[in-house]
Amino acid sequence: MKELRGISASPGISQCSVLVLQDDQSEIPRYDIDEDMVSREYERFSQAVQAAIEEIEQIKNQGDSPLQPNERQMLDTHMLMLNDPDLGNKVQAGLYEQLTNVEYVLFDLMQDLVKKLEAVKDDYIRERTADLHDVSKRIINNLLSDERIDLSTLNDDVILVCHDLMPSDAIAMDKLRVKGIAMDGGGKTSHTAIIARAFEIPAVLGLGDITQRVKTGDFIVMDGYKGIVYLEPDEQTLDSYSRKQQAVQKREIQLMRLNELPAETRDGKMLSLKANIEIPEEVDAVESHGADGIGLYRSEFLFMKSSTLPDEEEQYDAYSRVISAMKRRPVTIRTLDLGGDKLMHSMNLHGGVEKNPILGWRAIRFCLSHVDIFRTQLRALLRASVHGNLRIMFPLISGVQELKEALAIFQAVKLELQQENIPIAENIPAGIMIEVPSAAMTSDLLAKRSNFFSIGTNDLIQYTLAVDRGNEHVAYLYDPLHPGIIRSLKMIIDNAHKAGISAGMCGEMAGDPLYTLILLGLGLDEFSMSSFGIPQIKQIIRSTSILEAEEFVGRVLEMDSPDAIVDFVSTTMEDKFDITG
Amino acid sequence: MKELRGISASPGISQCSVLVLQDDQSEIPRYDIDEDMVSREYERFSQAVQAAIEEIEQIKNQGDSPLQPNERQMLDTHMLMLNDPDLGNKVQAGLYEQLTNVEYVLFDLMQDLVKKLEAVKDDYIRERTADLHDVSKRIINNLLSDERIDLSTLNDDVILVCHDLMPSDAIAMDKLRVKGIAMDGGGKTSHTAIIARAFEIPAVLGLGDITQRVKTGDFIVMDGYKGIVYLEPDEQTLDSYSRKQQAVQKREIQLMRLNELPAETRDGKMLSLKANIEIPEEVDAVESHGADGIGLYRSEFLFMKSSTLPDEEEQYDAYSRVISAMKRRPVTIRTLDLGGDKLMHSMNLHGGVEKNPILGWRAIRFCLSHVDIFRTQLRALLRASVHGNLRIMFPLISGVQELKEALAIFQAVKLELQQENIPIAENIPAGIMIEVPSAAMTSDLLAKRSNFFSIGTNDLIQYTLAVDRGNEHVAYLYDPLHPGIIRSLKMIIDNAHKAGISAGMCGEMAGDPLYTLILLGLGLDEFSMSSFGIPQIKQIIRSTSILEAEEFVGRVLEMDSPDAIVDFVSTTMEDKFDITG
Repeated sequence: MKELRGISASPGISQCSVLVLQDDQSEIPRYDIDEDMVSREYERFSQAVQAAIEEIEQIKNQGDSPLQPNERQMLDTHMLMLNDPDLGNKVQAGLYEQLTNVEYVLFDLMQDLVKKLEAVKDDYIRERTADLHDVSKRIINNLLSDERIDLSTLNDDVILVCHDLMPSDAIAMDKLRVKGIAMDGGGKTSHTAIIARAFEIPAVLGLGDITQRVKTGDFIVMDGYKGIVYLEPDEQTLDSYSRKQQAVQKREIQLMRLNELPAETRDGKMLSLKANIEIPEEVDAVESHGADGIGLYRSEFLFMKSSTLPDEEEQYDAYSRVISAMKRRPVTIRTLDLGGDKLMHSMNLHGGVEKNPILGWRAIRFCLSHVDIFRTQLRALLRASVHGNLRIMFPLISGVQELKEALAIFQAVKLELQQENIPIAENIPAGIMIEVPSAAMTSDLLAKRSNFFSIGTNDLIQYTLAVDRGNEHVAYLYDPLHPGIIRSLKMIIDNAHKAGISAGMCGEMAGDPLYTLILLGLGLDEFSMSSFGIPQIKQIIRSTSILEAEEFVGRVLEMDSPDAIVDFVSTTMEDKFDITG
Repeated sequence: MKELRGISASPGISQCSVLVLQDDQSEIPRYDIDEDMVSREYERFSQAVQAAIEEIEQIKNQGDSPLQPNERQMLDTHMLMLNDPDLGNKVQAGLYEQLTNVEYVLFDLMQDLVKKLEAVKDDYIRERTADLHDVSKRIINNLLSDERIDLSTLNDDVILVCHDLMPSDAIAMDKLRVKGIAMDGGGKTSHTAIIARAFEIPAVLGLGDITQRVKTGDFIVMDGYKGIVYLEPDEQTLDSYSRKQQAVQKREIQLMRLNELPAETRDGKMLSLKANIEIPEEVDAVESHGADGIGLYRSEFLFMKSSTLPDEEEQYDAYSRVISAMKRRPVTIRTLDLGGDKLMHSMNLHGGVEKNPILGWRAIRFCLSHVDIFRTQLRALLRASVHGNLRIMFPLISGVQELKEALAIFQAVKLELQQENIPIAENIPAGIMIEVPSAAMTSDLLAKRSNFFSIGTNDLIQYTLAVDRGNEHVAYLYDPLHPGIIRSLKMIIDNAHKAGISAGMCGEMAGDPLYTLILLGLGLDEFSMSSFGIPQIKQIIRSTSILEAEEFVGRVLEMDSPDAIVDFVSTTMEDKFDITG
């Protein structure tokens, strides 16, 4: 048995066979082959050429828009190249000479040819070079696509093993069949982690080289709580994990009994427990875990799943679906939070690679300089508002100036819709994420201009401590219990209450039971988290009182050593609520 | 006349011929040649081969350490390869075929050969491949070095025009001859900018493509105040800038008269004006501008100028030189602040490329995980302390925990030196930079454990506003007058005073006259900046009172609109002190 340790990205236990996915397919794979595999590789090449020929035939014969003469000429040239027997001969020679896979042989051949042709200064040749490039790309794409696995329809239960998972793949995967995810890369806040948690799929990420250590069909055990993967598990491990899995299921059933009960402390304070979601499909899980509403609907997936921007209708459909499904319960939709560490297919919108994306052109900054995109989203949101109880939330506000600008655009869009006689709900609350230290420092000023606060702890902690938690060398400094963080939270919540607005939290801290008592004591009104975390937080809330929580926070605020704070909090939570810190 | 706009990185006016430097020489340059240049290129190749042969002869004949048999064998193989006429033939054929420069032809040839050889699975061949690689690298290095310009001894006054300047080149350049620096890249906080300001050389950076627009010998006018470069300047521009240059010189002479006077407000508060330096050579400028001491000696240059780490002796020499030269005035030396955006030749020390270096493994974080490097520096510092008045300062402290760890190592090194009977000064103050928001939030706790604070505004503002000021898309958000920043500064300074320690500032804000009145009103005790900025700040301090400054800050703190604050501050400073905001 071998034990691999990674990052616990989504809790749960899984015992299953693995399916290893190929590495990032934008690179040309290269691997050695034996001499007796040459004919198989050549056959793959012939099929890819045949597929390319058929594709071009199809383009030429599509009826709806007739081709321009130069387009037709180009396709004819491509066809000639594909049918040229010399290409096949060269590939065959290359296969025997290099003994590597045919994608690489073809790639190499084309690079060489293109380079030679580029040296010739002649317009005709230059055009042929571009043609050659297109043709080889088409063949290579065909070669690669026949190795692609369609994750959306799997035949068996599997644990996915991969280097990294594109958000589009993660969202498309067959969630009933995927019983776990183990990746070389990724961290707790990666999109794979978020989706895994959303669908309660155990995930261990950041394993380094698991793709090199297992092959499709191997049976493994995965502990998503501890972030461990066991290869070739022994009998004892299998037994012990089967027992654990049963215990977990039993506890879940117990917690689910809390669904119908309110999140009320013993001394009668009602808290609001809401869910974070990424995609409309998650609404079922929100329902089944007893959420009071949606505290954070991230709108980014709509923007990431295809290479074009979603138009107003597509957005309207998605927002309406969620708002309607939640009936009268509040649905907080955050406007576009793209940029930074988030992926974006439509990269042409972006201004090149950023040296420090976390401190870069993202979220409200990006929207205020792409007003067309922002207005389209606001139109879709306002139109969808008639279907229920919508709250709009702006991310990454750093001060009063940005908030004023965002609200001005929001008002303008409202007016525009009213003039078009399009119905919208009355009094749609507009709130902000507090996740930039300067927003915390000026939360008194911001509270006067917002309808609610939602604290984004992931970013707030990163900025306040100047730590990129994705950086393994400094991740140890990321500490929600740092006195600087606790004091910032207190300042934000106090300022919200002074202005008479509610203070919520939608960062990871809100869903971690270790911090529930502190957050209660600081006066937080609303906790938003992955749906499946709600029952446990509710249980803690129902078994304590605000008085107790305030006393606890009072003691934490007096301590100045972070180590002592961590010890005190862990011990208390363990003693009182059976929570391991 | 053409006008190029860039970033004003160092003030001043310059009118001079330009010297264009080749692009980054670590890349293999590639440029087309005519057929009649082939023989010249081949001649360059022959000379580079000859130089390589001589280098190997020299290595073989060096007397002090006899070669191992396998080393001798390797050198003999290299010699054979260099003397192989086939290499010359191939290069000549390549030159005619590709019509590009010989470095590239050779590079291409070797790439090709190496690729072919790598496919052959044989140990002997593998070793020969490594040899080939070494030999070609040696020849290419020789080819490149004959194009390098020695910046340390220039024959004429020039404005340097380049894509980017290595810190080692910037430091080595002939500062009497270099009258200006104009770069494609770089920003206000780049090392080129810092050195240019230190030596009062006008600099305009971030010009995009100036290297493509001028050639060596062109005459240009440079306005380092406004960040403008004029190509092919007309008569009127030349006249107007000659007049401006004279006016500037006149004003400088006036300000220098303040050198012997103290930095005392009209109501009698004595401020300390200190200098920021990078290298011991700057001490002359510190003297001539009337500084009360050195508020920030960045120790990074010692670590960046060569490919090996500086040993204890080298560091001791540098620190002693500065401390002795300053006599009894305080010299504040900051321990290693490497990592992040700073360059580091010895990259093998580092853990790969960071996605967000500003939030990464740098400064005290790096030192606490490389205790050997940290201890060596502390030993050198403590030994140098006997020559004058040393203060030690730790950068990027994010909380009490890190400070405790740094102080523990500091104490251990002290004890070690005492046990070795090496003399050190008594009571060397140990202070910290406040530049992380969490340090500001916990400055009361940190003040109890530090002998002084020095606020690093460049980083503090970046983290507090979550803005990488080097990112053109968000740089507009970088605002020292943001209410969140002013409040942070107030909190830090108040907490320092409550604990009875002094609060200084060594970020750029301290040297910008626009902010002097605010900083005085907030209670700042010590301003540290580039030497040449001291007289102007002193003039403002001497012409105002603390009472007036406090009233001014009181009004700023009441305002909540950043725009209004900027207006108010600019107008006031312009009216009262003739400072343009």
